[in-house]
Amino acid sequence: STASTGSTTGLDGRVCAVLGAQWGDEGKGKLADVLAEKYDLICRFNGGANAGHTVIANGQKFAFHLLPCGLIYPHTKNLLGNGVVVDMEALFDELGDLDKGGVDWKGRLFLSDRAPLLFDFHKELDAVMEGQRSSSGNKSIGTTKKGIGPAYSTKMLRNGLRVGHMRHRTEFLTLLRSLIESHRQFYQLDIKEQDVLDKYDAFASRAQDMIVDGVALVNDSFQKGKRIIAEGANAAMLDIDFGTFPFVTSSNTTVGGVCTGLGLSPGKIDSVVGVAKAYTTRVGGGPFPTELTDSRGHGDRPDNADETEIGLYMQNEGKEYGVTTGRKRRCGWLDAVVLKYGHLINGYSGINLTKLDVLDYLDYVRIGVAYTIDGVTLGPGAMPSTIEDLAKVEVVYETLPGWRQPTKACRSYDELPENARNYIQRIEEIVGCRVSWIGVGPGRESMIQHS
Amino acid sequence: STASTGSTTGLDGRVCAVLGAQWGDEGKGKLADVLAEKYDLICRFNGGANAGHTVIANGQKFAFHLLPCGLIYPHTKNLLGNGVVVDMEALFDELGDLDKGGVDWKGRLFLSDRAPLLFDFHKELDAVMEGQRSSSGNKSIGTTKKGIGPAYSTKMLRNGLRVGHMRHRTEFLTLLRSLIESHRQFYQLDIKEQDVLDKYDAFASRAQDMIVDGVALVNDSFQKGKRIIAEGANAAMLDIDFGTFPFVTSSNTTVGGVCTGLGLSPGKIDSVVGVAKAYTTRVGGGPFPTELTDSRGHGDRPDNADETEIGLYMQNEGKEYGVTTGRKRRCGWLDAVVLKYGHLINGYSGINLTKLDVLDYLDYVRIGVAYTIDGVTLGPGAMPSTIEDLAKVEVVYETLPGWRQPTKACRSYDELPENARNYIQRIEEIVGCRVSWIGVGPGRESMIQHS
Ligand SMILES: Nc1nc2c(ncn2[C@@H]2O[C@H](COP(=O)(O)OP(=O)(O)O)[C@@H](O)[C@H]2O)c(=O)[nH]1
Ligand SMILES: Nc1nc2c(ncn2[C@@H]2O[C@H](COP(=O)(O)OP(=O)(O)O)[C@@H](O)[C@H]2O)c(=O)[nH]1
Repeated sequence: STASTGSTTGLDGRVCAVLGAQWGDEGKGKLADVLAEKYDLICRFNGGANAGHTVIANGQKFAFHLLPCGLIYPHTKNLLGNGVVVDMEALFDELGDLDKGGVDWKGRLFLSDRAPLLFDFHKELDAVMEGQRSSSGNKSIGTTKKGIGPAYSTKMLRNGLRVGHMRHRTEFLTLLRSLIESHRQFYQLDIKEQDVLDKYDAFASRAQDMIVDGVALVNDSFQKGKRIIAEGANAAMLDIDFGTFPFVTSSNTTVGGVCTGLGLSPGKIDSVVGVAKAYTTRVGGGPFPTELTDSRGHGDRPDNADETEIGLYMQNEGKEYGVTTGRKRRCGWLDAVVLKYGHLINGYSGINLTKLDVLDYLDYVRIGVAYTIDGVTLGPGAMPSTIEDLAKVEVVYETLPGWRQPTKACRSYDELPENARNYIQRIEEIVGCRVSWIGVGPGRESMIQHS
Repeated sequence: STASTGSTTGLDGRVCAVLGAQWGDEGKGKLADVLAEKYDLICRFNGGANAGHTVIANGQKFAFHLLPCGLIYPHTKNLLGNGVVVDMEALFDELGDLDKGGVDWKGRLFLSDRAPLLFDFHKELDAVMEGQRSSSGNKSIGTTKKGIGPAYSTKMLRNGLRVGHMRHRTEFLTLLRSLIESHRQFYQLDIKEQDVLDKYDAFASRAQDMIVDGVALVNDSFQKGKRIIAEGANAAMLDIDFGTFPFVTSSNTTVGGVCTGLGLSPGKIDSVVGVAKAYTTRVGGGPFPTELTDSRGHGDRPDNADETEIGLYMQNEGKEYGVTTGRKRRCGWLDAVVLKYGHLINGYSGINLTKLDVLDYLDYVRIGVAYTIDGVTLGPGAMPSTIEDLAKVEVVYETLPGWRQPTKACRSYDELPENARNYIQRIEEIVGCRVSWIGVGPGRESMIQHS
């Protein structure tokens, strides 16, 4: 039913995209990390410093928000592609952390000259926009206030600056002055022009050696037989086009974003691995049909409604709170409608099901297999596009027996309890896609291959 | 050297993308029209009412700015995909023209519920932005003032409305009120709220039957074996990411835009035809390395410089002035560096070389085969990303003898004059891609297949 032909695991792909298949925090970082060992060039293609991969290496914890997580492997080159909005301050902060952790990144990190630059005033504009939204009675869309939306908005208005402009100092400063001026004029932002100019001028001179023609780098590498990972930030249901708008991020998190964000043509992308938790989580507001958490877990379900205990249990077992913010993530059953919809758009070669171990002691597990609205079942893969329609969705579930034993120590598919294997097999059947990796714990060794 | 495997002509593809390979006006409309006869679903995936396809059918001329040109074939279904910004007024204007021309479009035109809506105040904002640009000493980027950039900018800020909102009247009007308010507040636009609400409320009720889940429509059609054309607007060098920024349009005009703008995964796109004139044109400002026109042709070359007569000749012979505006298009030699760069990004299965006949009576023809900057030759496919670097580019040319005889009556490749065939063959060698269609005149019959 799909047209993808690539390797299901991504292990033997030439270009492998690692994409979030739900609402984020699926554990993309871990798969990218496992794959990076065998790859040459690791690229971010979308978003900005709003990703949240944590990778443990040399016994140390590294948080990657903007940089590709491949940097911790000395053999890799790493690129921020043209689709990424680059916050130079966040960049040098993260590089500082790598320095402290003894990771030598020099000569291995490249910035596409076509990537838009994100400035401090973009972050301020995020706050202004949230203010405008709430004063007009709209719901907060819970942005991370990292300036991502405003930076992409500037790009669309074509008065922004790009990484390549940092190579032309006079032009860079002129354009920056004009962008500051327009932000003052339109949004009444109080920007200290000279401070901003000095700050980014200094960043620009430190960045010179990293600036490259990203399209050429990626395609030359491909031509030379190098192996490339496209490391996704955010997730399918947060895609600006296909996600639960307006509770989405401002970039394409789906596979088209790999093409537009790196300059790789579709025929070159041979593996697309969708990363999905064995259940579902969502941070902040927005539709979440299979949700089980009530206000105790910062969720939207009526307090103490059916199965809200299970939502809380998932939240605790899965340590579902934000790395930096501590914000609790809403939890619920696995939504196979979401996976199927993502599969239509992304053409997954395989799925990485993570955190299976979190479900180990449940008596039963459920899979959301279809949506109905007013009693009518939606077609396979159909996803309502408005929050009004999503609010009306009733989920049809299949219930399977739990396995009630630990999976953490399992190292092969056959070692998994029979009921766990049945759960996985049912997911494969419903989504129409191989579950090629199974995560049973946070460590690298807890990734079971199922090719 | 490329990873594409599809049909070179697009004739036997399941999903065929028809993409501009230069700076627009290449004649994509004619190819889309030729192919549409054999296809079931014709989709626009990017841009808005800023395209300019002219198709002649039933002895009448139809101008398509927003609608897919497939509409003139009664057997086709047609879609404005989620990547298109939809101006409802332009939509009903164009449908009115079809009505007058006796084309029955009812039940055959669909709007993706995820497509952003473009309002009148977006057009006003275009003017405000140009004003801001020129007051800060920047060059005009020559937008068409159709509101495209502002509409995409609103999308990125996630406070916009989408086609699907028209299904929920109360919500639609509330969101529209809030968007009007923010445009008043930030851009000091004088918007008559009630007039705008009434106008779009009326459009919304007329549009109800056209609204669909575009992702489902496209993928269901694919699954059922229907054949799909993705009809590009604008062109590779006008892509928001890969074009000559900031002289670009605000959407992805390259193949990644087909994935993000329709929800089709890369593996499903099996043919990508790049449409290129046998020479090069560009409308308005911005870099144009192989240009030959001086001020007499609204070009940037010094007056009466070498070969500017040839530029003028191309402009006259090729009727290179805008359909609606009458604005003269700058003209120059074919730039194979541009084609090669586009080929990297798009992975062309084949190229449609149009308007070969315009060169019929030249003594010689030239192909720009490489760029040098300060005497250093850039690598194959490398394209400077800033206008500063593009301004420094010197073009290396290859010169070939002209054919000095008419090609207009040729109906097969073998009938073409030997020197014309040599010209085509040399283009194929340099770009590394088959020239699978050759246009030798405006009519449908003047399309030579070369598979
Ligand atoms: N228990 C358990 N935790 C996991 C598993 N896979 C990943 N994690 C943890 O889940 C969290 C989410 O991963 P993170 O990198 O933030 O998600 P990303 O943004 O999708 O990369 C991290 O703390 C991981 O260590 C798994 O299979 N089991
Ligand atoms: N002389 C000549 N004119 C052509 C040929 N192909 C297309 N045209 C004309 O070129 C113009 C450009 O086509 P248009 O549809 O505006 O370009 P699009 O925006 O790329 O679809 C139209 O007036 C066509 O009729 C050709 O091979 N020879």
